[in-house]
Amino acid sequence: MKLRKPPVNSLSLELLTELVISLEKLENDKSFQGVIITSDSPGIFSAGLDLMEMCGRDPAHYAEYWKAMQELWLRLYLSHLVLICAVNGVSPAGGCLLALSCDYRILADNPKYTIGLNETQLGIVAPFWFADTLVNTIGHRAAERALQLGLLFPPAEALQVGIVDQVVPEDQVQSTARSVMAQWLAVPDHARQLTKNLMRKATADRLLKQRDADIQNFVSFISRDSIQKSLHVYIEKLQKKKG
Amino acid sequence: MKLRKPPVNSLSLELLTELVISLEKLENDKSFQGVIITSDSPGIFSAGLDLMEMCGRDPAHYAEYWKAMQELWLRLYLSHLVLICAVNGVSPAGGCLLALSCDYRILADNPKYTIGLNETQLGIVAPFWFADTLVNTIGHRAAERALQLGLLFPPAEALQVGIVDQVVPEDQVQSTARSVMAQWLAVPDHARQLTKNLMRKATADRLLKQRDADIQNFVSFISRDSIQKSLHVYIEKLQKKKG
Amino acid sequence: MKLRKPPVNSLSLELLTELVISLEKLENDKSFQGVIITSDSPGIFSAGLDLMEMCGRDPAHYAEYWKAMQELWLRLYLSHLVLICAVNGVSPAGGCLLALSCDYRILADNPKYTIGLNETQLGIVAPFWFADTLVNTIGHRAAERALQLGLLFPPAEALQVGIVDQVVPEDQVQSTARSVMAQWLAVPDHARQLTKNLMRKATADRLLKQRDADIQNFVSFISRDSIQKSLHVYIEKLQKKKG
Repeated sequence: MKLRKPPVNSLSLELLTELVISLEKLENDKSFQGVIITSDSPGIFSAGLDLMEMCGRDPAHYAEYWKAMQELWLRLYLSHLVLICAVNGVSPAGGCLLALSCDYRILADNPKYTIGLNETQLGIVAPFWFADTLVNTIGHRAAERALQLGLLFPPAEALQVGIVDQVVPEDQVQSTARSVMAQWLAVPDHARQLTKNLMRKATADRLLKQRDADIQNFVSFISRDSIQKSLHVYIEKLQKKKG
Repeated sequence: MKLRKPPVNSLSLELLTELVISLEKLENDKSFQGVIITSDSPGIFSAGLDLMEMCGRDPAHYAEYWKAMQELWLRLYLSHLVLICAVNGVSPAGGCLLALSCDYRILADNPKYTIGLNETQLGIVAPFWFADTLVNTIGHRAAERALQLGLLFPPAEALQVGIVDQVVPEDQVQSTARSVMAQWLAVPDHARQLTKNLMRKATADRLLKQRDADIQNFVSFISRDSIQKSLHVYIEKLQKKKG
Repeated sequence: MKLRKPPVNSLSLELLTELVISLEKLENDKSFQGVIITSDSPGIFSAGLDLMEMCGRDPAHYAEYWKAMQELWLRLYLSHLVLICAVNGVSPAGGCLLALSCDYRILADNPKYTIGLNETQLGIVAPFWFADTLVNTIGHRAAERALQLGLLFPPAEALQVGIVDQVVPEDQVQSTARSVMAQWLAVPDHARQLTKNLMRKATADRLLKQRDADIQNFVSFISRDSIQKSLHVYIEKLQKKKG
């Protein structure tokens, strides 16, 4: 019932594909009703989109990458499984989207573990379905401010704005996730699945209706010289940080 | 100006019809501008949908019952009267929907008086217009969690999540309702009515546009063997509780 | 980077036109990325719509006035500039809409400085795009209650309901606005602009799609004898207050 991902710094095309396949298997295995999503390397939940997949590649690659990202979100957001997210590390951009797509989010109480859709800080724009998912979670006003400023929330603020549901000491994240899961699994499963779909279908449909246009939009945006330059600057900054 | 309902454990077809007729009369009587909705038998505001109307009957009965439920909600939600709900007892499922359809909700501060759309706990699914009404009241995220888990909120939590507007000691529910009503009636009435309609019309229209489909959906869902079985189990559990 | 408006009691047709032209100039001047909107006469941020423009005039005038009001809102709400609102005085109705159309609102902590869409108190109805802007800011439930009752929130309540983002001592409003502006200007500007548009376009489009109908609606509503009478009563009450 527990999915462990290999240590991730970034959602590479390979990792996205693996996640989609794993999720599909669990969905089809009737013995699974819920999955706890967490990171095997505490400290980094997920660094989000892999900038290397978005930088210096050709349009066909960008399109393939973006389609995989859409696929993962659609799978997670509409999953009939109960998805509990045990956020045991920093969780920017795409990492935050993973968490937002689950049914419940528990964040470890460590001031370094910030979470948010910080795309603007990288000079890029969160796509509309990232924004929709955030609006559904924290409301329109808080989402507008967080997205414009590219805010990363430390635990206390994350809880207050509602981007996570619970903040617990770092060593209790997994046990809390298990007891929350027990609460969710106690609900008659078929009714819960239908209810989840009722609440999320309209948001997922918005992407499904314009999936190709969204891919083309991403490809043409990411291919711009100015964006490629922004990403290069950001990657260099990250690499300097590392040493 | 005060509507008293006979002691209710459940919204039977007869009660639904009576409520619709009473409300229609009050709407057409120019001397009424507001109605306080409360229960004559403190302890139970309304037990919600009458499971007896949904169990072991024929499809035509289910269809008639559901149409009456839609009708009551449409009347309440779009009523040009000021509707103040004095929730003086437990208020699950359909009982909660009654409260949510009013303009203001006051809950008696008694830990037994829980309120919420707990349909999933019965193995059934709140229809989209129940969900819409809850989303309009407490926002998308809180509604999604409450609906998936079928949560019943005790007073302090009900206030915090916003499913009620005020919690007061049990003996002050009626007097508080009267003073809140005075505040609402002080507003120029025609402007208030138009404003209410502006805020609620889109939500009501969603049901109006697919009313028959919603009835058919309910009938086919409730007629399923698995659902009938769930309801039987639940009714037996209730009857054991009673003695 | 700072726009100072002449002392305003009301958004006259002339002032609306001036504001639109000023904003357009600033938008086209590449050296400006943000504007702080405040009042030159502390105590009154803006008294909102000019009742004199809505009372005892002919339909063509009402139509021209309303079109100018729409134009200002569209300019503000979709402005690619960062708009910080330093609310240093009372801010009812149209004055509140100005504030709501900005990216961030700071209110001076003076109990007299109330803010809200209080149209119903005047016997009129806030148009749907006023309501949409409020819903986007404070959510559906709080907006429904505030609009029906025509609530004006004093600072502490304004902060709690979320109609402003920050309340500070009166002598710190301008300095706070400047430091908030610095935070917003630190975000890569192009990404921020696109993100703002992503969040606001659907709401603005609702008006753009029915702009003429909205004007006709306003003209026929405001031309009614009952409304003209309500406004006269209100204006007389205001004039008595003044002396």
